[in-house]
Amino acid sequence: MSAPYARPLDLKHGLVDLTHGSGGRAMAQLIRELFVRELANEYLAQGDDGARLGRATGRLVVATDAHVVSPLFFPGGDIGCLSVNGTINDVAVMGARPLYLAASFVLEEGFPLADLAKIAASMGRASREAGVPVVTGDTKVVERGKADGVFITTTGVGELRDGIDCSGANARPGDVVLLSGPIGAHGMAIMACRENLSFDAPIVSDTAALHGLVDALLRAAPGLHTMRDATRGGVGATLNEIAQQSGVGIEIDEAAIPIPAPVEAACELLGLDPLYVANEGRLLAICPPDLAGDALGALRAHPLGAGATRIGRVIEDPRRFVQMRTRLGGRRIVDWLHGDQLPRIC
Amino acid sequence: MSAPYARPLDLKHGLVDLTHGSGGRAMAQLIRELFVRELANEYLAQGDDGARLGRATGRLVVATDAHVVSPLFFPGGDIGCLSVNGTINDVAVMGARPLYLAASFVLEEGFPLADLAKIAASMGRASREAGVPVVTGDTKVVERGKADGVFITTTGVGELRDGIDCSGANARPGDVVLLSGPIGAHGMAIMACRENLSFDAPIVSDTAALHGLVDALLRAAPGLHTMRDATRGGVGATLNEIAQQSGVGIEIDEAAIPIPAPVEAACELLGLDPLYVANEGRLLAICPPDLAGDALGALRAHPLGAGATRIGRVIEDPRRFVQMRTRLGGRRIVDWLHGDQLPRIC
Repeated sequence: MSAPYARPLDLKHGLVDLTHGSGGRAMAQLIRELFVRELANEYLAQGDDGARLGRATGRLVVATDAHVVSPLFFPGGDIGCLSVNGTINDVAVMGARPLYLAASFVLEEGFPLADLAKIAASMGRASREAGVPVVTGDTKVVERGKADGVFITTTGVGELRDGIDCSGANARPGDVVLLSGPIGAHGMAIMACRENLSFDAPIVSDTAALHGLVDALLRAAPGLHTMRDATRGGVGATLNEIAQQSGVGIEIDEAAIPIPAPVEAACELLGLDPLYVANEGRLLAICPPDLAGDALGALRAHPLGAGATRIGRVIEDPRRFVQMRTRLGGRRIVDWLHGDQLPRIC
Repeated sequence: MSAPYARPLDLKHGLVDLTHGSGGRAMAQLIRELFVRELANEYLAQGDDGARLGRATGRLVVATDAHVVSPLFFPGGDIGCLSVNGTINDVAVMGARPLYLAASFVLEEGFPLADLAKIAASMGRASREAGVPVVTGDTKVVERGKADGVFITTTGVGELRDGIDCSGANARPGDVVLLSGPIGAHGMAIMACRENLSFDAPIVSDTAALHGLVDALLRAAPGLHTMRDATRGGVGATLNEIAQQSGVGIEIDEAAIPIPAPVEAACELLGLDPLYVANEGRLLAICPPDLAGDALGALRAHPLGAGATRIGRVIEDPRRFVQMRTRLGGRRIVDWLHGDQLPRIC
């Protein structure tokens, strides 16, 4: 197609304006010269209001996530790769193979096109690395002061593997709780940015697409009961969700939970509990005890699960409590998060 | 599941606060007592970070749309039903059967829970009427002043009918252009709200799910080339998109395009061209001339296409112009929309 535009987008100094969301020529140009270029794939190139895709053989899985992280750029990533990885993970931990992503953008008038191009490029890289294309999208623009730079909603479509039945509702007393690696890096990378903290070794977000790790894990332990990525609310909130859904209690061991020293230091400084700090590349897996060895081995054999550990077990508890044996030998309830420790972390 | 909450949400006087987006107990409560209640279906009740669905038999189609309409409530609808219908339509006009919707919410701190409940109820109604369930969702909250009430992204998943090949790229010289009914109602309903205009007969948005109409149309004329709903940028922008994608020209007849009198009056008052005003329940269909009679008959036989007309034809034109024969016998170019006539119309 020939581009009916007088001049190309100014990706150095240009700003988003309301015409970029109006359905007219400026919007078509933004989509073609920025999004389609960075996210290039055969589906996006169709140019319709949606994408025509292949057939899925398994049952479908759909997950959607709005991303409102602030700041938009942080050590280890940005809202672009975060929005790709986060939704891939939501699909993957349901035991499904992620196939396609859709992306919708709400842009604030005045947002620099250069930043938008960086974000789109980061989405493109993450999507190519993961092998999950962004097949369709949408762009809206709101007036200055009516949004905060850019919000991105990604939706993932995947297909369930046959014979896999993973759910937050499947944890059973006696099951073992595994964690794929050290916690707290994503949340504390964001907080360190916001609070202008500097450390000798900067904290870098753990954002990563976990579908490869999930694949390895399910091959080793197809009878796994539950997987979930420990994002908003961290390990603490995620375990409470599972306890609630499955109608069980969960007991974890403080000493078994790996927390990187800089994360621990930053949490102490800010009065935060690392158990509730968001991760973007860590998953919890719950499986019958006879599968735990194979599952842990598969996690550790994968680069994204090298630091995997066994952190606890599922118990009977009609109150559905999550409890922790502390390093000092005591016990405490790991309650649901009450306040909002860390708003806009993803 | 028992609800681990001290007291139910205050859906009368409560406000959205940052804890509703934090991944903790308040978020779980908001999802359960407001969204799950209004959108109730077996998939949403699964309670995981995504939904396990059925198998699709045809090729998949995915479409996504962010909704930022302002005001949130308007004659004939609100952001809730709009976000359901709009995405159903994007899937339908690709020749697919819409199967499932996902919904993500960006909420502004301080937004009334009563309004959110009204919006969720409206989504629920629209989704039940259409027979397309909202199977999964996500909620984020940003600080006061960092968004504008609520933004909703919906993503639709559908399956292509076998043997149907509808695309904006398929229009061919000689084809006939059909329009499913009078134009401009949605955009002018919004503008009348914003400008506090009052008319004897208030203008009511045409928001509607068009998949039933599409179904009737495709049964009557399976060899149809192109369908598209004329949303942002109206009939003018939509025809330009098609001309661009298909590499053709399009000629339309001003006298053949139905414009309700109140829409025409409001457009005149505000200096707007109804050709560029958004519709949310109108589609353009382009088909070979021998199918035009059957297609028009099928449209007119359906309540949402009762006012369907033949408005023009596709011609050869390497410049890909859309032209209009005016009522006075002249001709004018229907150019791409340059500025942003109507921001935040959907």
